[in-house]
Amino acid sequence: MSETVREIGEFGLIDRLQAVLREEMGQRARIILGIGDDAAIWRPAEGTSSVITTDTLVEGVHFRRDWTDWRSLGHKMLAVNLSDIAGMGAKPVLATVTLSLAGDELVTDLEEIYRGVAALAEPHDVEIAGGDIVRTPGPLTLTVTAIGEGLRLLRRSGARVGDRIAVSGTLGASAAGLRLLSGENPHLRQAATADLLIAAHLRPNPRIALGQMLAREGATAAMDLSDGLLGDLPKLLAASGVAARIETERVPVLPAVHALFPDIWQALTMRGGEDYELLVTLPASDADRIVADARKIGATLTVIGEIVSQEDGEPLLTIIEPDGRLVGVEPGAWDHFR
Amino acid sequence: MSETVREIGEFGLIDRLQAVLREEMGQRARIILGIGDDAAIWRPAEGTSSVITTDTLVEGVHFRRDWTDWRSLGHKMLAVNLSDIAGMGAKPVLATVTLSLAGDELVTDLEEIYRGVAALAEPHDVEIAGGDIVRTPGPLTLTVTAIGEGLRLLRRSGARVGDRIAVSGTLGASAAGLRLLSGENPHLRQAATADLLIAAHLRPNPRIALGQMLAREGATAAMDLSDGLLGDLPKLLAASGVAARIETERVPVLPAVHALFPDIWQALTMRGGEDYELLVTLPASDADRIVADARKIGATLTVIGEIVSQEDGEPLLTIIEPDGRLVGVEPGAWDHFR
Repeated sequence: MSETVREIGEFGLIDRLQAVLREEMGQRARIILGIGDDAAIWRPAEGTSSVITTDTLVEGVHFRRDWTDWRSLGHKMLAVNLSDIAGMGAKPVLATVTLSLAGDELVTDLEEIYRGVAALAEPHDVEIAGGDIVRTPGPLTLTVTAIGEGLRLLRRSGARVGDRIAVSGTLGASAAGLRLLSGENPHLRQAATADLLIAAHLRPNPRIALGQMLAREGATAAMDLSDGLLGDLPKLLAASGVAARIETERVPVLPAVHALFPDIWQALTMRGGEDYELLVTLPASDADRIVADARKIGATLTVIGEIVSQEDGEPLLTIIEPDGRLVGVEPGAWDHFR
Repeated sequence: MSETVREIGEFGLIDRLQAVLREEMGQRARIILGIGDDAAIWRPAEGTSSVITTDTLVEGVHFRRDWTDWRSLGHKMLAVNLSDIAGMGAKPVLATVTLSLAGDELVTDLEEIYRGVAALAEPHDVEIAGGDIVRTPGPLTLTVTAIGEGLRLLRRSGARVGDRIAVSGTLGASAAGLRLLSGENPHLRQAATADLLIAAHLRPNPRIALGQMLAREGATAAMDLSDGLLGDLPKLLAASGVAARIETERVPVLPAVHALFPDIWQALTMRGGEDYELLVTLPASDADRIVADARKIGATLTVIGEIVSQEDGEPLLTIIEPDGRLVGVEPGAWDHFR
């Protein structure tokens, strides 16, 4: 009874706190979805659904001021929230920003953060509605909460046996960019493609229009990829009660990731994290049409595998390696505390 | 151009950040109200308005674990947000909770925080919809974001000349309780009423039903009192473009505050802060009826003064002391950074 957070981990803690809410409050009908999806859904009025999501970035944990410029930091703190909204197929409408400050920050740096926020919010018609500014003796901490709206929303739980599994864009570029920023391979920073990979890490593009199109056109489930394909796909499978097979050869990756990291490009692609691309399941009969629709709005969707039924004793996720070998993957994402 | 946050203060920073948003984004029609009221308002559907508010509590700044139990902390972190919703006259529907943790926290303590949250959420039909859990090298930090809904909402800007100014409950008890917790007057902790004052500080009651009734029955403006009457009333006056006169003798205060702090009870009452009562303006012709309506739902409203027109060279707020002396008060709340 005296465990610490570190001992039971992030996901253990979420389970325990959910249990408290269930015990004390029971279930409520208006909230369609609580903890555990990209965002929570509620119904403010008949026919409308709203979604809410929140993410916190802590200096030294989620960003370093010697690795990012302030404007990119503002972009990213909003982008990771809009990506959650995109993962629900919703349209983002509003975000609040909370700054926890020591007091010795330069006002011009905070203005730069806000410029990064505003530059991403503006083209997507997202209003920035204030928030809280508090003093902290700890590190600079930024919390963004975003609200979105939609008619048909995409949850993690809708995948059905036979569905095709697809991802948007390419995977691994962000993890490769982080590797370059970390300075472990200083000579690689000179590569012509280094800036492209670093930008993928510092300024991810939330797939907002694509998410809404997928919801409209009949995708069965979706989520955004923040913990890596092998971290996140099992969450979708578990929520849907299904299993999956994917082919590593079909997972889209930038040539630059392959070229700069010939030894670890596959780990970066499959497990890298912070891609902020969409992972989606499509009915087999509609997959080709929806992939073509994505191209029409300037997005790419690549089918990487399919949903199969969950069998006793079989792994939730099976990876088909290029040589035909099958590898089973068990759920369990990166845990921020363990 | 190289000022720090401490140099320009919280309100200076808010002005600068708002200016960035205005420059980069212009105005948007769907957001009715941005930074500067208790909450921001938007319209998810025709005929419905939603409000959002967020507050962050930092250990060592907003709470101390040797002064509060964990369950009270959970109560308070939700209560301060629900109080903002009440200050808009809205009905709270949902809240998210973000925990920034070092990792060595006891899980049972965090469960107690959630029990405090749930026990306040449950009777008010507020769903707790998850949030984020992040690791921080800094102090324990709790962020709650709450969503509310309403048809007619109360802003700070609606007060009109001739309106009566009223407050709910009594003022100063929370500040008196904080004084007791601080240990400056250890002998007072033995007083029979000490626990009542400490509870007012640790477990404030958001005036949710009262706020909704005030919106329905024609109050012209409202806000919740967190920075003390003399800190907050000038904000309402400035937003409404009016001035006010209040009589100190009419401001409701618990006998215990007067009895335990005979020398400073007036400062605690007028400037104490964290009352989480409602400050409201009522049309003169409806004031008696609305005060009576409040009594019917178990709340108290006390008229303490009236709105007058703003005259050049006159103070925004005039206090009529018991001896008839007039004292002018200029705006300028407690600034958390200066």
